[in-house]
Amino acid sequence: MAKNDPIELNKHTITRDPLPASKKIYIEGDIHKDIRVPMREIALTNGDKVTVYDTSGPYTDPTAEINVRKGLAETRRDWVLARGDVEEYEGREIKAIDNGYTDDDKAFATHNPDLQRKPLRAKAGQNVTQLHYARQGIITPEMEYIAIRENQRRQEWQETLSSEEREARLKGNSFGANTPDEITPEFVRKEIAEGRAIIPANINHTELEPMIIGRNFLVKINANIGNSAVTSSIEEEVEKLVWGIRWGGDTVMDLSTGKNIHATRDYILRNSPVPIGTVPIYQALEKVNGVAEDLTWEVFRDTLIEQAEQGVDYFTIHAGVLLRYVPLTANRVTGIVSRGGSIMAKWCIAHHKENFLYTHFEEICEIMKAYDVSFSLGDGLRPGSLADANDEAQFGELETLGELTKIAWKHDVQVMIEGPGHVPMHMIKDNMEKQLEACDEAPFYTLGPLTTDIAPGYDHITSGIGAAMIGWYGCAMLCYVTPKEHLGLPNRDDVKEGIITYKLAAHAADVAKGHPGARYRDDELSKARFDFRWEDQFNLGLDPDTAREYHDETLPKDSAKVAHFCSMCGPKFCSMRISQDVRDYAAEKEKIEAGMKEKSEEFKKQGGEIYVELTE
Amino acid sequence: MAKNDPIELNKHTITRDPLPASKKIYIEGDIHKDIRVPMREIALTNGDKVTVYDTSGPYTDPTAEINVRKGLAETRRDWVLARGDVEEYEGREIKAIDNGYTDDDKAFATHNPDLQRKPLRAKAGQNVTQLHYARQGIITPEMEYIAIRENQRRQEWQETLSSEEREARLKGNSFGANTPDEITPEFVRKEIAEGRAIIPANINHTELEPMIIGRNFLVKINANIGNSAVTSSIEEEVEKLVWGIRWGGDTVMDLSTGKNIHATRDYILRNSPVPIGTVPIYQALEKVNGVAEDLTWEVFRDTLIEQAEQGVDYFTIHAGVLLRYVPLTANRVTGIVSRGGSIMAKWCIAHHKENFLYTHFEEICEIMKAYDVSFSLGDGLRPGSLADANDEAQFGELETLGELTKIAWKHDVQVMIEGPGHVPMHMIKDNMEKQLEACDEAPFYTLGPLTTDIAPGYDHITSGIGAAMIGWYGCAMLCYVTPKEHLGLPNRDDVKEGIITYKLAAHAADVAKGHPGARYRDDELSKARFDFRWEDQFNLGLDPDTAREYHDETLPKDSAKVAHFCSMCGPKFCSMRISQDVRDYAAEKEKIEAGMKEKSEEFKKQGGEIYVELTE
Repeated sequence: MAKNDPIELNKHTITRDPLPASKKIYIEGDIHKDIRVPMREIALTNGDKVTVYDTSGPYTDPTAEINVRKGLAETRRDWVLARGDVEEYEGREIKAIDNGYTDDDKAFATHNPDLQRKPLRAKAGQNVTQLHYARQGIITPEMEYIAIRENQRRQEWQETLSSEEREARLKGNSFGANTPDEITPEFVRKEIAEGRAIIPANINHTELEPMIIGRNFLVKINANIGNSAVTSSIEEEVEKLVWGIRWGGDTVMDLSTGKNIHATRDYILRNSPVPIGTVPIYQALEKVNGVAEDLTWEVFRDTLIEQAEQGVDYFTIHAGVLLRYVPLTANRVTGIVSRGGSIMAKWCIAHHKENFLYTHFEEICEIMKAYDVSFSLGDGLRPGSLADANDEAQFGELETLGELTKIAWKHDVQVMIEGPGHVPMHMIKDNMEKQLEACDEAPFYTLGPLTTDIAPGYDHITSGIGAAMIGWYGCAMLCYVTPKEHLGLPNRDDVKEGIITYKLAAHAADVAKGHPGARYRDDELSKARFDFRWEDQFNLGLDPDTAREYHDETLPKDSAKVAHFCSMCGPKFCSMRISQDVRDYAAEKEKIEAGMKEKSEEFKKQGGEIYVELTE
Repeated sequence: MAKNDPIELNKHTITRDPLPASKKIYIEGDIHKDIRVPMREIALTNGDKVTVYDTSGPYTDPTAEINVRKGLAETRRDWVLARGDVEEYEGREIKAIDNGYTDDDKAFATHNPDLQRKPLRAKAGQNVTQLHYARQGIITPEMEYIAIRENQRRQEWQETLSSEEREARLKGNSFGANTPDEITPEFVRKEIAEGRAIIPANINHTELEPMIIGRNFLVKINANIGNSAVTSSIEEEVEKLVWGIRWGGDTVMDLSTGKNIHATRDYILRNSPVPIGTVPIYQALEKVNGVAEDLTWEVFRDTLIEQAEQGVDYFTIHAGVLLRYVPLTANRVTGIVSRGGSIMAKWCIAHHKENFLYTHFEEICEIMKAYDVSFSLGDGLRPGSLADANDEAQFGELETLGELTKIAWKHDVQVMIEGPGHVPMHMIKDNMEKQLEACDEAPFYTLGPLTTDIAPGYDHITSGIGAAMIGWYGCAMLCYVTPKEHLGLPNRDDVKEGIITYKLAAHAADVAKGHPGARYRDDELSKARFDFRWEDQFNLGLDPDTAREYHDETLPKDSAKVAHFCSMCGPKFCSMRISQDVRDYAAEKEKIEAGMKEKSEEFKKQGGEIYVELTE
């Protein structure tokens, strides 16, 4: 089985080890008996067990049989079919150009027939979105699944807390977000119905383990992956996904460009338990040889259907890049930095016409609702530097995204809104507030933001700061940034570094919001730290492998892992050990004071006043 | 000359290369003609030059002759002597126990006579602190030096900005901090006089390049170093310091323990251009064989004098750990985690007596003012986990530190206050506000704080988030955390990673505060990025080496560094290139509109109304 070494091209291995001391458990549904919600249970050395959210899918379940050339089990297919509102159909014919070729032989060489599925779509006149169901008052299996998943069995440990402990953990500042103590399926339905959350879940992505994006739920993170320049194996492409979700990617965006992207998308979707997002304009641009001016609504529309049939769960659509906003970027320090934004800007000014994504927006909605693809309304004019943050172009586009949100909702299509980018700390909150207002609380999904531009090579951190803050303020999903941002393409280590950084930022946000299911993990880890349970400290962390490795560099012996000291103070003097003395002292003091009080009471009863009370 | 490779034990090399494309420049004083303030000038490929703050000392000046076995030039000695209030004296006799030995032969084997100096102290009845001078209305060379240093020649580039650009950069939220457009020597004096800032500058640290810590100045960072377990060379110990200041350490704390710490301190002080801080109780504990109960005021006092004579610039003194606060930590999740705090707690409860640092505080002040050692009042009861943040023990101690601040100020002794630790985001601001109030705006110096406990191995990031935020709120100095925090001792790479993380956090804070000398560097880097001036982008960053290395992994050819595309989009399509089209379009549009307006005006004059105005 693969260890966590950088994957080698010809090894074709998929990482399958469970995380250390971890076991996959499944919780069954109540309303929908056939749902099984996966969680990760960490066994501690003191016999306790801690349940954590698990994005890693069946890959970390040693009992799951996985063949990436066939795809994951289509667990969700029955749920979709049971609703009786979809039909299987032949689907659009796959063309050579979908893979970037004119020659059929080359184009289909990378296709794997075992990963082809006949697509489903809404029957004529039907709307199959989760938003549509929610508004009808229907609790879907997806909704109940999410309710169970978001709770993470917290009722179990919540009962063990004193009321003070419980209150302390819940004390946060949520800036108006409202996460109930227990997430019920009905709460999920209501949040979806009101547009405050989305469940990206294309009916053709039947391998999905449903998840939710909304500010009254755990803050989520997205990891981006892309195809390799050189044609590679299915295993290699799938491993990127598996690696990303292993460390906590809640959704994955496939930003592949160039050759074989249709085939690659099949590899990924058929093997992905997490929602997959794409930017369809990238593929549309490939189909017109990279010439933005040659894009047409027809090419784009065809691409949307192509990807919707494959099962993409959300589409980034840059429909807010209006012709009139484009000149507003002319005097920026860094102009337009969004790839999709600049494609559309180029098209608009070349034709001196309004953005076709805007003019055809209702037609896009029609496609989205037939497959339940969610909108991720792209921020094509996001700032590319602190200097351009919160400017007229950015906020103009945001207003338009708000307008488009209402149109999408009219069609019962789910929407989230993309946000910046590069924003100094004091201007972050304004982004969140304006977004909530302009887009009627549709979930916000931001890239960072980077809080300074002076640290290339460390932009996972410059942006992790902004991500934690905007997550706290109410951002629902954070798009990760790797250390290679602005410099090159990330490798396997960079992807992991970016994900862990964003995972800790999202968690810091959950804690600060007072999310009832957040701080227990910090507390469990802190207790392990205080008790010198080194193994538990590693295993409760976001990256047990790195923590263990760092520890072993200084204290390599296994015996040190149970020793009651650490390399910081050494065996002679240990800060944490002194605490036992303090506890003994406090207990002793309490006993003495109690004893004196008792004696004092006794004397009082006898009419004496010798002892004065010590307790203040 | 040494490259940036991990130092090898037997190589005895000191890193001396200037940073890429960088030149050391010196600015002379106006009031004090003999001061020469070092800065780093980065030469850009477009001919521009950018000046940045430089902590690296003479090591990065190839013209400086350096022999670490003799120490740096004692530039500051004349300034100290010129004040006529100090005397040279024999000094305390160095004892074997100062190096942790009973045997003189072993104890002095590591001593280097060329690094011994006869100490200076205040003449009887004199007070030689910068606070004392400031209150007398005296502008010392140190103050003028700092004024020049904090300005970083910003007047030069400020003149090139339009008033809008200038205003935009200054727009921040400083939470009551007030940094003027130009830092004058008088402003420095006033800030010192009012206790809002300190200049840690022991009169015996004559190699110092003075710097300031206060919330109306650039946010500073501290890096910790410690001696090696195995006796090592002077070069090896000094290289740790040199490495730390190369990447931006504004002050360095020497947390050495065990053998040879007196000798090591000589190595470091005589070769350090930055202020050195220590925790004297660590050495005092060594002198009583690590048994906290055996500590006495006499041993501690002797240690203070020993270190003051060597030239330590600030002492962490845990005088706020009062006996009555100790039991308040008994029910904490992580008890007392500060090493100094737990030493004092142990002493207090063992003797059931009040902390001798508290009871002897005025005597400590007498020593501090004779050498101008600044207080860093230690937070011995800081929280070691989110669960313990902002509790009664922590805030009780903070109140006492406020009380001690007033006593120190009575003696004209400079003071800063140490802060936590582990604090969730929503509780950080409260720390800053309470500190400002309790300690009358004495500068705050915090460790992180860590915003979550679940990411061992990434605590430079969990704490970098909190550091950036508290720096924004008004914290004056941030004590770095490395990736090895809680796990082991940092190596050379960890130290660099920690420093760069804190440097970017401090800078993000400066930008958010609207510091007039902060955002120009972001803007210069963003312009370089937009122009595809790769070399400039690397060189303007905090870590040019890593940025270049990351870039070269994907696009290794030198030609790529001037190519107008990057590895993200590739040569066919480039977001940033499109901006030129946008600019042409905007210019064209403006021209057309101007032309139409002109025509319209013309017609109006002729009484016609054919053209309607286009501009909104």
